[in-house]
Amino acid sequence: MKKNESTPAVQDFKFSCEVEVRFRDLDAMGHVNNAVYFTFFEIARTGYMQALGHYSDKDDLFDLYPFILLDVQCRYLSAAVLSERLVVHLRTVRIGNKSYQFEYLITAKADNRPVGVGRSTQVYYSYQQQKTLPIPDAFRQCIEKLEARSFDL
Amino acid sequence: MKKNESTPAVQDFKFSCEVEVRFRDLDAMGHVNNAVYFTFFEIARTGYMQALGHYSDKDDLFDLYPFILLDVQCRYLSAAVLSERLVVHLRTVRIGNKSYQFEYLITAKADNRPVGVGRSTQVYYSYQQQKTLPIPDAFRQCIEKLEARSFDL
Amino acid sequence: MKKNESTPAVQDFKFSCEVEVRFRDLDAMGHVNNAVYFTFFEIARTGYMQALGHYSDKDDLFDLYPFILLDVQCRYLSAAVLSERLVVHLRTVRIGNKSYQFEYLITAKADNRPVGVGRSTQVYYSYQQQKTLPIPDAFRQCIEKLEARSFDL
Amino acid sequence: MKKNESTPAVQDFKFSCEVEVRFRDLDAMGHVNNAVYFTFFEIARTGYMQALGHYSDKDDLFDLYPFILLDVQCRYLSAAVLSERLVVHLRTVRIGNKSYQFEYLITAKADNRPVGVGRSTQVYYSYQQQKTLPIPDAFRQCIEKLEARSFDL
Repeated sequence: MKKNESTPAVQDFKFSCEVEVRFRDLDAMGHVNNAVYFTFFEIARTGYMQALGHYSDKDDLFDLYPFILLDVQCRYLSAAVLSERLVVHLRTVRIGNKSYQFEYLITAKADNRPVGVGRSTQVYYSYQQQKTLPIPDAFRQCIEKLEARSFDL
Repeated sequence: MKKNESTPAVQDFKFSCEVEVRFRDLDAMGHVNNAVYFTFFEIARTGYMQALGHYSDKDDLFDLYPFILLDVQCRYLSAAVLSERLVVHLRTVRIGNKSYQFEYLITAKADNRPVGVGRSTQVYYSYQQQKTLPIPDAFRQCIEKLEARSFDL
Repeated sequence: MKKNESTPAVQDFKFSCEVEVRFRDLDAMGHVNNAVYFTFFEIARTGYMQALGHYSDKDDLFDLYPFILLDVQCRYLSAAVLSERLVVHLRTVRIGNKSYQFEYLITAKADNRPVGVGRSTQVYYSYQQQKTLPIPDAFRQCIEKLEARSFDL
Repeated sequence: MKKNESTPAVQDFKFSCEVEVRFRDLDAMGHVNNAVYFTFFEIARTGYMQALGHYSDKDDLFDLYPFILLDVQCRYLSAAVLSERLVVHLRTVRIGNKSYQFEYLITAKADNRPVGVGRSTQVYYSYQQQKTLPIPDAFRQCIEKLEARSFDL
């Protein structure tokens, strides 16, 4: 996420979830620690996977994580503080043959200020078969339905 | 850190520190959680700041953090597992007027395999004065001494 | 908290707050990690201190923590899992001259099952004066008001 | 661990391991967070289980955790700070029919001051069979060998 890339806007996202800042999320500077933003992204990923619906059995924790994280990045826009309620927005921005990319926007619920923005790339992976796989059509269709758009390869 | 950028090599780094994987660093998949890589980067930043020497009093925790983190990214190269001993390498790759950039390489101590690579941008910030500042010459010189090279603006 | 001590009941508590299990709260066994229960206790302590009202200025993070934790313990009653919504109950059970004791009960919101129970002892401490202090009357009265009872020394 | 119980001494322990305080272990008060002491206990448990030797195959993460944690407690003796190197001592103090108890002592490596002391109770549990089991003789013998003493039921 380059500095000159424009920050996405809240209305660009179909999915979001809320998270409350815990005392343990702060570091010695009194702000939410930089690594915790990635935990917030992860909370959104978990929620997004659950929201995708039944592309698989998902009777198992491992079915909620049909991917290996390839890379992730965050740009910090403002400090988040104790007890603040945050909204973590997530959208799919690219679906390739084996990998797909998410974009994240964290905003503060009280004043809507942007707190952080990020991107991640996932490779489709079956924990059962223990190997990467081409993205199944069923998975792509679940994303396209949630995002209400189609994705070119 | 784009996928096609070359991974830096261990010998490119003057500074490194070791970290041991804790059980709590693992997530439900049994590997070191993605957010924890950023905690490893942070451990290296702390050690690097201490290694820089006396650009300031550093009698205080806040003097060890003369920056605000602007952005950080990680590319995952292999999974790290319980009790593994990792080496986190850090080098400065750019010093600007107000910001400077670090590059990270995590390797496994036992087999030297690359585990993760990353970058971060810091803005020089005085917690005492509570504002960003141009990078002081003393700070730049400490980095140049440690890195045994000069940096163009 | 001895094994044969009776587990407190939800109706014994005037204060509670909710917390949602994050993926990062799980450990490699797939359950909420044992140390995270103490983070849940801490979330309740923070909320309880905020609920106590203006025994001090509380314009500052340090005013929310007028104590040093002396000891804390937890007995685990059932495993908590991903995305589960928990309720953390907290009550004061003793106020001494310099220290006071909290009791905790964590229940699952969906099925009300007890998840964990605990106790902690705090010593009254002023971060401003950097020393322990006798518990101020104003602090005691705030607790007595919230708990709707009086405490013998 | 009652306040009037005597603090165990370093020489009472056959097993110990070292841990380094990370920046992320600190909380907004600038000290190691209370919940992190339990992560330190856990690091020692992991090391202790590995040190016990081959009571089972231990080819698997789950074999390293033949227990469910029943309860754990910590008494805080002094604050631990950034980059401090700590020693976590662990010993078995009781082996029952189905449960066994550990005692912990954390000291600072530089000045040997006691930092925390704790206890935990574990129930023997097979993750493979998914049930609690009587403590196998092989497990008891591994502990007795490491501790160089026998335990009455």
